[in-house]
Parts: sequence; C-alpha cells; structure tokens
Amino acid sequence: MAKKIINQPEDCVSEALEGFLKAHPAYVQVEGASGLRVKDVQDKPALIVGGGSGHEPMFGYFVGKNLADASVAGNVFTSPDPGSILQTALSVERGKGVLFVYGNYSGDNMNFDMAAELLADQGIAVKTVRVWDDVASAPKEQYTDRRGIAGNALVIKIAGAASSVLDLEGAYRVACKARDQVYSIGFGLSGATIPGEAHPIFTLPEDEMEYGLGIHGEPGVRRVKLQSADSIVEELVEQILADSGIQAGDTVCTLVNGLGATPLLELYIMNRKLAQLLEEKGIHIYNMDVGNYVTSLEMAGASVTLMKLDEELKTYYDMPCRSPYYQKG
Amino acid sequence: MAKKIINQPEDCVSEALEGFLKAHPAYVQVEGASGLRVKDVQDKPALIVGGGSGHEPMFGYFVGKNLADASVAGNVFTSPDPGSILQTALSVERGKGVLFVYGNYSGDNMNFDMAAELLADQGIAVKTVRVWDDVASAPKEQYTDRRGIAGNALVIKIAGAASSVLDLEGAYRVACKARDQVYSIGFGLSGATIPGEAHPIFTLPEDEMEYGLGIHGEPGVRRVKLQSADSIVEELVEQILADSGIQAGDTVCTLVNGLGATPLLELYIMNRKLAQLLEEKGIHIYNMDVGNYVTSLEMAGASVTLMKLDEELKTYYDMPCRSPYYQKG
Repeated sequence: MAKKIINQPEDCVSEALEGFLKAHPAYVQVEGASGLRVKDVQDKPALIVGGGSGHEPMFGYFVGKNLADASVAGNVFTSPDPGSILQTALSVERGKGVLFVYGNYSGDNMNFDMAAELLADQGIAVKTVRVWDDVASAPKEQYTDRRGIAGNALVIKIAGAASSVLDLEGAYRVACKARDQVYSIGFGLSGATIPGEAHPIFTLPEDEMEYGLGIHGEPGVRRVKLQSADSIVEELVEQILADSGIQAGDTVCTLVNGLGATPLLELYIMNRKLAQLLEEKGIHIYNMDVGNYVTSLEMAGASVTLMKLDEELKTYYDMPCRSPYYQKG
Repeated sequence: MAKKIINQPEDCVSEALEGFLKAHPAYVQVEGASGLRVKDVQDKPALIVGGGSGHEPMFGYFVGKNLADASVAGNVFTSPDPGSILQTALSVERGKGVLFVYGNYSGDNMNFDMAAELLADQGIAVKTVRVWDDVASAPKEQYTDRRGIAGNALVIKIAGAASSVLDLEGAYRVACKARDQVYSIGFGLSGATIPGEAHPIFTLPEDEMEYGLGIHGEPGVRRVKLQSADSIVEELVEQILADSGIQAGDTVCTLVNGLGATPLLELYIMNRKLAQLLEEKGIHIYNMDVGNYVTSLEMAGASVTLMKLDEELKTYYDMPCRSPYYQKG
C-alpha cells in the first residue's frame, strides 16, 4: 500500500471537504452533495466547476470572488455524479443561468450533460465550456478530443471574471474565447497512487520521463531519458507554439504548473527558461503564474500552459480574484 | 541520481531566483547577493528573513507587503553567507534598523550573527529572533536548542505586521512574543534528495513513518508503522499541548504544513481532525492555514503548528499581508 496520510480511502473526499470548511469559513458545503460554494451567493450567472478529486487546489479551491461560485467533486480521479452536479448548480443559481466549466473527459462530459438536461427541464439556461488544452492528447484536427489539464485554471479565471459582469451569453462567449486560446503540455517523472490502491497508476524507470502524460496518468506521447530543465521547457514550448500558432508579436499569460511532488524551486527553474524562450521569440509576456494549481496527487512532473490574450481577455484576466490558492490583483 | 527538473545542481538557486523575478516583477534581486527584496522599500524597520534554499515558498517567497522586506537564500539546506546577509539587509535598511527572523540552526545563527556585527559596525541597530518551534528537536528545558520549522511562517507573519507599524524595539518585542507562543511537530513518510546527490537524505521502509523529523531530514524521535491520519494528528496535538501548556479557553491559530510531496487532500484530512481535537478540548480556533509553506524539497510528510494568540498578537495576525504564496485579509 502506498504511503498516504488518510483514514479510510472511501472517506478521503468527504473528510478533506470537512477540513477545508474548517479552515475557510467563507465557504459552505452544498446540501446533499460533495460540493462547496461561496457563502454569499451573488446575483449573477452561476459559474460551476468540478471534476474528480485529487487535483487540488483544482477544482474545489478555485471557488471565490470573481472565480467559480461553486464546485462539485467526484471521488479521486472520478467524475462527480449528475445528482451532485445538479444540487451544486441549484445551490447558487439565482435566475441568471448556469455556466459549466470543466475538463474534457468522457465521464465528466456525460455527467455534466445529464445535469444540464435536468436544469433545462426546470427552465434554467445552461451553457457548457469543456477545457481541452492538452495538445499532447490528440492531433490538432481532433482538438475536441483533447484532455483538459492545467489550462482549466486560466479558463476558470477568465470565466469567473466574465460571469461577474456579463450575462450568461456574454460570459459563455468570453469563456469559449479563453478556452480556444489556451494550450498546455506536461510531462511526468513518477506516478501517483490512488488512495486505497496498492500500486501507482504507472511507473517509470529510474532515469526516464514521459512527455504528454495526462493528469490521471494517461499515457504520454514519448518516453525519454531524463532531460535537463532547459531541454524539457524547450520541447514543451516548441510543441505549444507549433500547435497554437502563437508567434512573435502575440501576447500571452503563462502557467508553469506542478503536478504535486515537484518543488517550487524546480518550477521556477522551468519558468526562467520559459521566459527566456518567449522573449527570444518576440512573444510578449503579460503575466506568469508558477505553482501547484492542477495536481495529480503526488505525481512528480509539471506542465507549461500558454494563453494568448487579446484586449478583451486581458480585461478579464486583470480583474482581481480571490480563492485560497489563487489570487490576482 | 534522483529525478530532478534542473540544469546544473550548482545553478539551482540562482536560476530559480531568475525565474521567480520573471513571474513577480514587484521584487528585485539584491545586488551582489542571493537575496531578493521588495522593489518599493518602505521607511520602516527592515525585516530580513532567510536560510537555506529547498524550503520554498519559505523564505524567499515570504517577502511582501506586511511580511518580510527582503530575504537571503543559501544553497539547498545550507545557510546563506554573512556577506549575502549583510548586502541584503543594507539593500532595505532605511535608518530604522534591522530585524532578523530565521530558523534556529547553527550555520544560520553563526552567519546571521556575523552579519549583525558587520551592520553594528556601521552603526545600524540590529535585533535577532531565532524561531525554535520544533518541540521534537530538544527537551523543553533546552528550548533554545530547538530547530525552526513551519512556525517560521507564523512568526514572520506577525513580525512583518509589527515592523510595519512599530519601531525596531517594538517589532522585536512582538516578534519575540510570537516566537515564544509557537509550537510545531512534524513527521515524514519519505526523504528528499539534494540536487546533485545520488540518494535521499534518509530512507524509510515501505510501511513506516517517523515522528519529529526535521525539515532537512534530521532524525526524528520515533519510527513507527504508518498510522491513520487521525492517529497521527492526535499524537502531534497531544505532544504540542503537553509541551506548550495550551489549554481550554486559550485561542490559537494553526498551520497544517505539507513538506512537499503530500497532496492538499491529505493536509485537509489532517486539518479536519486538528479542528475536531481543538474543539473537543475547548481551545478556540482563531484561524487555520493549510498548505505547503515550509517544505523540504519533495519530502512526503507534514507538520502541525499552533500559535497561542493574545489580543496583541491577534492585532498583528489580522493585518492584511501579501506575498506570492501567503496572503491574509
């Protein structure tokens, strides 16, 4: 059994939620669901995020001012059920409709779609934005098959800001634009173990790493000998630029995201090279985030995300926001 | 060689600092030193923190509004040299004196003391607060031999607030009070490897953990079979309460601190039990922090910290503060 600081594996998600609420009294649990929401619900389109647990602080800890209004959590690496999603959405919906933003996985797609239908049955307007930023997970011509990884953080940032000042249609349009401009690719050095399981999801030889790994341990595109930080970042940036078409003269915000067990020291070594490469290529850096935002339990590894910003996206990117592990302004 | 996302081991600290400054333009590097400081230096007693690298976000990323004015970083798990400390202090000293706050380790003590002498030679008033919160590292009657671990975060929080509104003597007095009221104890599940080294600092059998481990892998007090999260927290809280004398009717702020590779999910499972135990014992919880504040590279494990608050400490605890990985208010 992998070493975990837990009690019973099946209680991990509910116990962590209890512990979160003790530390953050501005949030409350959604009645009858594994969801949490802001205590003071605003009169605005409700932004609901969610997905499997094990990616903390995403999704649950991205609820807050100018971010999500509520979040719903499945078990570790498992989609939340439609009933929980429905309850969570209803707990913050105030007649202005619901915007769902989540990562593009078949389980999540199915369950959020079912919840959307149930909401529609009650006459509530629902819009859905699936984040599909992982350029390694499917070819460009099949981009709607791509997985959502660290880009979720930036799309939720923009969607949260937009939903605070626009109506549902407007917030949906802006969130789609953000989603269409965000590109990520990651790599893993070691696997993570789901609580209760005896073995990690995958293992890698002592001297190897894997490009393009998903945040649930989904296979990547290439297993290679461990590279230097600079070589890794060069490879990631090249792939993102080739795929996205981001080029000299464009403006981007960036995210170097740790998967769980990678020290901040290493993420900043990556960020140094990321900044150098973008500057060399004449790409303007609007802002850089570095940290553990979308993790994969205790996986070692990281990802690089670029979001191309136009003037409208900058406006929403610049709006102050606040949640326990993500703040701006 | 352990898997690290680095270039040359000897460049880790300087490259990470470069990467940090790219992401956080409100900070600048101290000329000629491995230190960083706020760009806009305030007319106040200068609060300088520092120590070995590898504990990020402590120390360097605790610089900011109502926190430290500057920080100086040694190599991984190595004290900064006296010259760097001196340069860093001078870069933010504005005639109101210098307050040093750092963890109680012989190397840091020696080097910060030498820097203090050099500052005194220039007629600059210096006060020093060594944080010795690790109750597992020496008996109570030898508390000045104890190591500084996660309690550093809370003492710096208070010292930063106090130094923003008080003179050097006043800030020193309040920081000492905070230091005298903070108690921590940690445990480890797996060791970390210093960049460039072939092996972790220590290893533990697959099914064992160690209570009282230091944040550089210093030996703990007891190696046991892996416990449940609730049992671990019970043991830690019992030890802290027995040592500190914190009791029913007292008010505390708390910190569940991850050492690097422990998921937030697990830290919140610990926090749930911490809140339960304190409530059961009639100890009032003023605020709870949960996260990776004082890490040990990619070590798995965590610590619990309690700080007993009186009305004066509450005032400084409540003052808003802001740094990239620690905010209040």
